[in-house]
Amino acid sequence: MYEKQEPECLPPPLFPGRKELSQKEPDFAIRQTLDAIKRKEADVQAWAQVRTAEELDADVVTSASAPLRAMPFGVKDVINVGGLPTKFGVAASSDQPVRFDSACVEQLRSAGAIPVGKTVTAEYAFRNPGPTRNPWNIAHTPGGSSSGSAAAVAAGMVPAALSTQTGGSIIRPAAYCGVVGFKPSFGLVSRDGLKLTSESLDVIGWHAASVDYAKVLADVLLPKMPAMTTRELRGIQVAITLHGSAERPDPEVVSTLRHVQKTLERRGAHCVEISIDKELDLLARAHTAIMKYEFARNLAPAIRQCGHLLSASLLNNVEEGFAVPDSLYFEMCAVQRELRTSWHDLSNGADLILTPSASGAAPLGQVHTGAPAFNKMWSVLGWPCLHIPVGVNSNNLPIGVQLIADWHHDFSLLELATTIEEQLNQKGDTND
Amino acid sequence: MYEKQEPECLPPPLFPGRKELSQKEPDFAIRQTLDAIKRKEADVQAWAQVRTAEELDADVVTSASAPLRAMPFGVKDVINVGGLPTKFGVAASSDQPVRFDSACVEQLRSAGAIPVGKTVTAEYAFRNPGPTRNPWNIAHTPGGSSSGSAAAVAAGMVPAALSTQTGGSIIRPAAYCGVVGFKPSFGLVSRDGLKLTSESLDVIGWHAASVDYAKVLADVLLPKMPAMTTRELRGIQVAITLHGSAERPDPEVVSTLRHVQKTLERRGAHCVEISIDKELDLLARAHTAIMKYEFARNLAPAIRQCGHLLSASLLNNVEEGFAVPDSLYFEMCAVQRELRTSWHDLSNGADLILTPSASGAAPLGQVHTGAPAFNKMWSVLGWPCLHIPVGVNSNNLPIGVQLIADWHHDFSLLELATTIEEQLNQKGDTND
Repeated sequence: MYEKQEPECLPPPLFPGRKELSQKEPDFAIRQTLDAIKRKEADVQAWAQVRTAEELDADVVTSASAPLRAMPFGVKDVINVGGLPTKFGVAASSDQPVRFDSACVEQLRSAGAIPVGKTVTAEYAFRNPGPTRNPWNIAHTPGGSSSGSAAAVAAGMVPAALSTQTGGSIIRPAAYCGVVGFKPSFGLVSRDGLKLTSESLDVIGWHAASVDYAKVLADVLLPKMPAMTTRELRGIQVAITLHGSAERPDPEVVSTLRHVQKTLERRGAHCVEISIDKELDLLARAHTAIMKYEFARNLAPAIRQCGHLLSASLLNNVEEGFAVPDSLYFEMCAVQRELRTSWHDLSNGADLILTPSASGAAPLGQVHTGAPAFNKMWSVLGWPCLHIPVGVNSNNLPIGVQLIADWHHDFSLLELATTIEEQLNQKGDTND
Repeated sequence: MYEKQEPECLPPPLFPGRKELSQKEPDFAIRQTLDAIKRKEADVQAWAQVRTAEELDADVVTSASAPLRAMPFGVKDVINVGGLPTKFGVAASSDQPVRFDSACVEQLRSAGAIPVGKTVTAEYAFRNPGPTRNPWNIAHTPGGSSSGSAAAVAAGMVPAALSTQTGGSIIRPAAYCGVVGFKPSFGLVSRDGLKLTSESLDVIGWHAASVDYAKVLADVLLPKMPAMTTRELRGIQVAITLHGSAERPDPEVVSTLRHVQKTLERRGAHCVEISIDKELDLLARAHTAIMKYEFARNLAPAIRQCGHLLSASLLNNVEEGFAVPDSLYFEMCAVQRELRTSWHDLSNGADLILTPSASGAAPLGQVHTGAPAFNKMWSVLGWPCLHIPVGVNSNNLPIGVQLIADWHHDFSLLELATTIEEQLNQKGDTND
């Protein structure tokens, strides 16, 4: 039975909200960032590199009057930031700084946000984890591959951080670290300046301290679709599936999802279970084939130059990728193309899909970052996905749910998530 | 009235065929390349950078026994080659060599081909031309933006060169330079290591001295779709449209296309005119909106760092891109998504579409590279396109036609083009 508990051991508080920041001096946020890093980085190890206080202070001066008013953000270390090296989670990578920002970093910078540094990524955004630990309990994994971005937000170091997802690399670490994770519609955020691993699947998204902060980044990075947004839960249709790829959700994940369902229903939403296990299993197979096929070809140049520095797990996956038959790859690309436009059929005409983000809370240990069992099929579809934290389990580790909307309905998803976050945070909702 | 003429002033002969090469020593091809560059580069200026003879010789030793047997190829200077700088057609770019090959260069290298160097590109694969001149007549443009790749192949310097197309940057220079140009299905060739300009449109393809050489690269770079290929023209359906975006084909282009049509019909193909002007105009509008919108965001990082070094035409296009309304961008992305799957409707159930590659032969002068009037709509659709040279016009400049197939039917297109090339090269076909 799910209970929203006050954890015995609270995680470091999240970054102050935007309302609080707006009442402070423009350099307050960067001070918060540097203080939190100073206090917690030794435990959390979220950062591959942090820019100097002098560089950040200089940016505050030039950004103070821009719309985002010197808001700090992290950048997963597979995405270029001008003046810093991109190391891809490979310690032996070149220390040569890249010249230009990626397009998405430039967009945030020109809106007045400040890139604080590079966050730890699993090796080439795949499986082999970096040193990052879960801020809720450093004996547990933060998830991956966007480990550092999720952990930096969870540790209150930054209000948001850029991340990437190919399988489940945004939603799963968001779930394990108890922060908002947002993977936009495939194709909406430019991947200029990102090391591609699987071009049919890679998406740049972000982790954020709240839906509000997730929306701040969306306002800058996504084109605004007009007249599609409502925050009103009354009358919306919500489709529910608990199906994962070769995994079942833990009872505490199920009870968390049921708690969210009841909250939605109490506000007038209509929730319906959908049976799309066969389609989801086909999509999971498509993910495996497409990801491995493309990953192998995209990692081959690095393997030629420095294969001896890469993990056995990566090399093995590349070998498997070269063994995927061309015919299977074509078949699965066709599955992807066809099902991407099937929102209406798959969701049964719903406004949102509600589904687990992961099978359970963050596992113990640092060797594995967990599996994308509840993410990979949605990554194939390219639909926007959002993780929203709900509460903690009996071990004081965060649990939440995943909300999904149709392609290009990113702002609908964010607006509805804003209301859902408000409703979940209201007292009196915990004992149903 | 079209006539296949023996030009008074033949262009430099193309690279020797594969059959001839197979009877020579493995270093014969690289010798050919270096000789042709020595003799013609001062006139043609196809190369941004050529690797040293020592480096190339070392590669011949390691590649001699691989399947492609030390076949030289060029690489457009927006695609990374490990050990060389990528300069994007901007003279003031960094001279810092990049560390890794792009995925496509690695695929060719590991099949035994040798990257000779970087070919001239228009500034950031857009409009502002580099120094390259048309090998058929150096007073004329080679087309762009893949100017150097097309010209290097036309000048017999390499049998093939990697290029990119966002609007018409492969097909148009292929037409102007009288070589084969091949733009594969969107998404089949990894764009790892390519500077993205418009992610919804950019495709890596290649120029080649023959359909045979184009197929050699396809065999390495594309997944093989099984059981879809025939070289038999008898009974195939060919849809014909002469429609361009805001341009009409010159009479000599029309008569060249009619010559190809008659050749196909003589071999038993059924040719039918299709009326899809409205759809093509909508696609051309989609191209303009999507390209400008994405180009602006992808070029902004370079503009921040070195905008003063970029052309007024590029800066102006970026400004226009930031002015494209989000709502128009969304609308045109939806047009793209919908029409991409409409091959059957648009082509009237054909096996191939036959259409001009450009409105005419290469214009005089070096200031403009021509317009993508017959290419941009097909770039939006992401279908494979192939330019095949047919003959020369009254000014001894090459003219040909464009062949298009459905998404992922790349090898069908290449196989049919092999037969069409054979038929066009047969004597006795010229006086109809």
